[in-house]
Amino acid sequence: MSAPQQTQRQAISRYPVPALEDLPEDIRSRILAVQEKSGFVPNVFLALAHRPEEFRAFFAYHDALMEKEGGLTKAEREMIVVATSGANNCHYCVVAHGAILRIRAKNPLIADQVAVNHRRANITPRQHAMLDFAMKVALEARNIADEDFDALRAHGFSDEDIWDIAAIAAFFALSNRMANFTSMRPNDEFYLLGRLPREKAT
Amino acid sequence: MSAPQQTQRQAISRYPVPALEDLPEDIRSRILAVQEKSGFVPNVFLALAHRPEEFRAFFAYHDALMEKEGGLTKAEREMIVVATSGANNCHYCVVAHGAILRIRAKNPLIADQVAVNHRRANITPRQHAMLDFAMKVALEARNIADEDFDALRAHGFSDEDIWDIAAIAAFFALSNRMANFTSMRPNDEFYLLGRLPREKAT
Amino acid sequence: MSAPQQTQRQAISRYPVPALEDLPEDIRSRILAVQEKSGFVPNVFLALAHRPEEFRAFFAYHDALMEKEGGLTKAEREMIVVATSGANNCHYCVVAHGAILRIRAKNPLIADQVAVNHRRANITPRQHAMLDFAMKVALEARNIADEDFDALRAHGFSDEDIWDIAAIAAFFALSNRMANFTSMRPNDEFYLLGRLPREKAT
Amino acid sequence: MSAPQQTQRQAISRYPVPALEDLPEDIRSRILAVQEKSGFVPNVFLALAHRPEEFRAFFAYHDALMEKEGGLTKAEREMIVVATSGANNCHYCVVAHGAILRIRAKNPLIADQVAVNHRRANITPRQHAMLDFAMKVALEARNIADEDFDALRAHGFSDEDIWDIAAIAAFFALSNRMANFTSMRPNDEFYLLGRLPREKAT
Amino acid sequence: MSAPQQTQRQAISRYPVPALEDLPEDIRSRILAVQEKSGFVPNVFLALAHRPEEFRAFFAYHDALMEKEGGLTKAEREMIVVATSGANNCHYCVVAHGAILRIRAKNPLIADQVAVNHRRANITPRQHAMLDFAMKVALEARNIADEDFDALRAHGFSDEDIWDIAAIAAFFALSNRMANFTSMRPNDEFYLLGRLPREKAT
Amino acid sequence: MSAPQQTQRQAISRYPVPALEDLPEDIRSRILAVQEKSGFVPNVFLALAHRPEEFRAFFAYHDALMEKEGGLTKAEREMIVVATSGANNCHYCVVAHGAILRIRAKNPLIADQVAVNHRRANITPRQHAMLDFAMKVALEARNIADEDFDALRAHGFSDEDIWDIAAIAAFFALSNRMANFTSMRPNDEFYLLGRLPREKAT
Repeated sequence: MSAPQQTQRQAISRYPVPALEDLPEDIRSRILAVQEKSGFVPNVFLALAHRPEEFRAFFAYHDALMEKEGGLTKAEREMIVVATSGANNCHYCVVAHGAILRIRAKNPLIADQVAVNHRRANITPRQHAMLDFAMKVALEARNIADEDFDALRAHGFSDEDIWDIAAIAAFFALSNRMANFTSMRPNDEFYLLGRLPREKAT
Repeated sequence: MSAPQQTQRQAISRYPVPALEDLPEDIRSRILAVQEKSGFVPNVFLALAHRPEEFRAFFAYHDALMEKEGGLTKAEREMIVVATSGANNCHYCVVAHGAILRIRAKNPLIADQVAVNHRRANITPRQHAMLDFAMKVALEARNIADEDFDALRAHGFSDEDIWDIAAIAAFFALSNRMANFTSMRPNDEFYLLGRLPREKAT
Repeated sequence: MSAPQQTQRQAISRYPVPALEDLPEDIRSRILAVQEKSGFVPNVFLALAHRPEEFRAFFAYHDALMEKEGGLTKAEREMIVVATSGANNCHYCVVAHGAILRIRAKNPLIADQVAVNHRRANITPRQHAMLDFAMKVALEARNIADEDFDALRAHGFSDEDIWDIAAIAAFFALSNRMANFTSMRPNDEFYLLGRLPREKAT
Repeated sequence: MSAPQQTQRQAISRYPVPALEDLPEDIRSRILAVQEKSGFVPNVFLALAHRPEEFRAFFAYHDALMEKEGGLTKAEREMIVVATSGANNCHYCVVAHGAILRIRAKNPLIADQVAVNHRRANITPRQHAMLDFAMKVALEARNIADEDFDALRAHGFSDEDIWDIAAIAAFFALSNRMANFTSMRPNDEFYLLGRLPREKAT
Repeated sequence: MSAPQQTQRQAISRYPVPALEDLPEDIRSRILAVQEKSGFVPNVFLALAHRPEEFRAFFAYHDALMEKEGGLTKAEREMIVVATSGANNCHYCVVAHGAILRIRAKNPLIADQVAVNHRRANITPRQHAMLDFAMKVALEARNIADEDFDALRAHGFSDEDIWDIAAIAAFFALSNRMANFTSMRPNDEFYLLGRLPREKAT
Repeated sequence: MSAPQQTQRQAISRYPVPALEDLPEDIRSRILAVQEKSGFVPNVFLALAHRPEEFRAFFAYHDALMEKEGGLTKAEREMIVVATSGANNCHYCVVAHGAILRIRAKNPLIADQVAVNHRRANITPRQHAMLDFAMKVALEARNIADEDFDALRAHGFSDEDIWDIAAIAAFFALSNRMANFTSMRPNDEFYLLGRLPREKAT
């Protein structure tokens, strides 16, 4: 079993992936900026570029939720992504956002813990409550009730924080489904990112 | 039990709803345009306007999927919304998109059929296959496999049609969760829309 | 898509439907009485008349639970039917009993709310508790415990009221399965009943 | 642990059980007839006699399905009861109808096999298909489709036989819920009935 | 339907069953000892002897959990086996350990109660809590939390007792899967054991 | 968030962990041998040493399944562990056996793929079928049927290979439950093992 060759042969997506030079200018610029910052182009950018309009809406939504300031740290936002993507068995999101979580939390262990079972993760009780609620949004939003808000407020979350938790879990309900539908493949680089001592947060 | 008063007292959303005049110009314009066309402002516009950036991304995504031409008719796109929103027990989306489906399909019965059990609905075998797949995206995207694509192609769906089905189901996975989270209330107008003979498609 | 023709062609049931004149006298009388009162014969009467003995037991049971006086109003009894039939994805019962619920509650919106997600419906806390228990009977009667009785008594339900709730949910567990098994088709008339201002309760 | 005393103290039902002499004449006669035939009064008769009208409908329905002739033997009808009651974790029905099944099938082992996992039971392929379908009616009637009818016809079941299978599974969906709701206790006699060589079928 | 012949023809296991004389000495001795004590060789010994090394580990594990002294009686240990094996639809374990439970508890009714629905069984509140936790280990160990330990301690269970409960449920998670995988057939003797008054505990 | 301190404070197990010098000689020797080979003592050895008899049976079973030769490679055996442990949300087993899988497969990516969703993993069709069956053993052994054996034989698996697949999935059904019950913590070393080019298989 020789992984590198195998993964070379495996496609990024079930759908055609456009060449960078064929993309609309705004999308190409965004992708090049990511490449310059990260050193590689995460495959989600290429897979979703198959549909430029949807690409723009997807990343505008993503950035509105993941890049903002507020009561949740950026690492906590990534925890929500990794926990709910684990529950949805989304390989791309667990691997890619697991890498970002490790870097943002400066913690090489946290992503694997949260992805498999947040109840066994080495996190604070406040983060535990945050992920309990994110999982409820991901798996049974039909049952959300006033008691859920009370439980979060008891841990110091504001109503805007609670919206953030819910909206991130809801957005990745979309994202996980698109990744599973397209069989999106995570870049090999993500698997190791944030696992070694010297790496820096982005 | 006197419904009108009760519903007057019931809020549109768990979160504050901004006044039209306090909204950014682009969002206010969009809302006014909808109001002019429909005769009322669907509550989803007001509830999501609580977060302007997310509002913009949400409706850009929505329009990219629901307003486009392609192998699926607009009525079929709404069928996907209604079926998957029923599976997610999303009251807002079943009622609001049920109305749009009735109007677009010029069929006063179709929405209630599809919302409760698409297997008992009076639809074509091709639409039945479309909804089977949409439900798989909504409920178990983890299991999507090549066989699912084959089954849809056998009914004449192109790969781009299949992306449309999946993307609509995935987008409403997000939308249903936000509506359930905010306890979004559908406008009373939606319940009756498209049920009487003389109404016209928009 | 032209619904009326399509539904004309769609059968009432997978099984043969007897002609009125071929039915035993007691069943024919019952059906004619319903027709006189409602203006049409609900298809459940025709579909179940395929088996006269079962027909008699079915409607005797139905009437014992739905037509009696007691701590539950007739509208509340129909709420239980609509909520549990929604959970069982029974198209016939949601549409037919949704109509009866709208009429009995004099509320054109209540049926669609309760059918999709009773937790988001515009009902009283007492009705919410009633439907929580009805759903437990419908979906996980194995787990019913003393605590469930305590919760209902705290809302003022007597033990006989609680039997009514359970028995209605249990009876429609039977009814929903027969309707799904026979692919029973609701009459077109039900879809609009009780949605317009001037209709009267029966 | 001394079982006889314990069970003496355990009630037959959560609800009051009427004295035989206080019951309407038709119900008392029916109960006395059962007692004469079986040597004891099965508790379901006493527990349901709390509501005479519902009692009459329940047993009329039961007899219409369980006592009739047709393509299914009486033992096969009881198999359906035992298998679906096991799936619904209904202690009363598994124990009481398990006894009847052992007697009718003249097989002391069959009930325990079918109650726990009909896929491991020592039954014919035709009976295996019958129970597969009964379980679908019990657990996911929403998904019943033409293919299910085809599979049963391939084993020689007529459409009337298929109705019998479905109706028995549907009726015990009601019965199991009432027994779990009332915490109905099976008579001690049922546990041993049909397990010893010399017993005769009723 | 003539059960004895049928079961004679039904195999003990999907896999070949070794002859006693072909087995390693330690395994043959163990089996002969069981036969001497019980009067027959339970089929699990023959079915697992197909793999001697796994046989030795399996029974060493079994004996370490089931034959030890401690806060749980031997009857209570068997209750855990029967309840969780019921939940896993393991026919072999429900029938074989049901027999052992009846004998150890000197109670001919307890096994059928616990196998179908421990919530309706005639057991103490302490035993009810024990089985609630065993079912959590069997079905959703992922969710075990501090609160589960608190609930058990409130009934007087020591931490070592709690380990016993969990370890028995976990061991039979393995055992149930092997029995279902091999289609292991329980000996006919088990069905009647412990049901008649004069039998003695082993 | 400073992970190393946090994890220092987090216990290996909910239960007391014996000191090496207090352990029986055979267990201490086994642990020292592992330490010499791996460079550290995997926490599962310390956590389970709380019960020496169960420890001995556990590892005897483990070795009988995981260290043997046969139609499955050692890497494939570990794949089964990682896939089913992911499905059971067992953090310890996914992290520890994920490391062993990476080393044995000489593939730094395979463990994360298989743990999240084996259907998206870069594996052969034969391995895909192997994991499909392992998941069935883990999650619904009740439904195993002849067809499952046929599907595996079509990929060239012998009946002894199939026993291996089932037995590994069944053994880790036990192991996952014990790890979740004790909140077993994986050693920090496992997270990085096998992710860097120069590591060698053990």
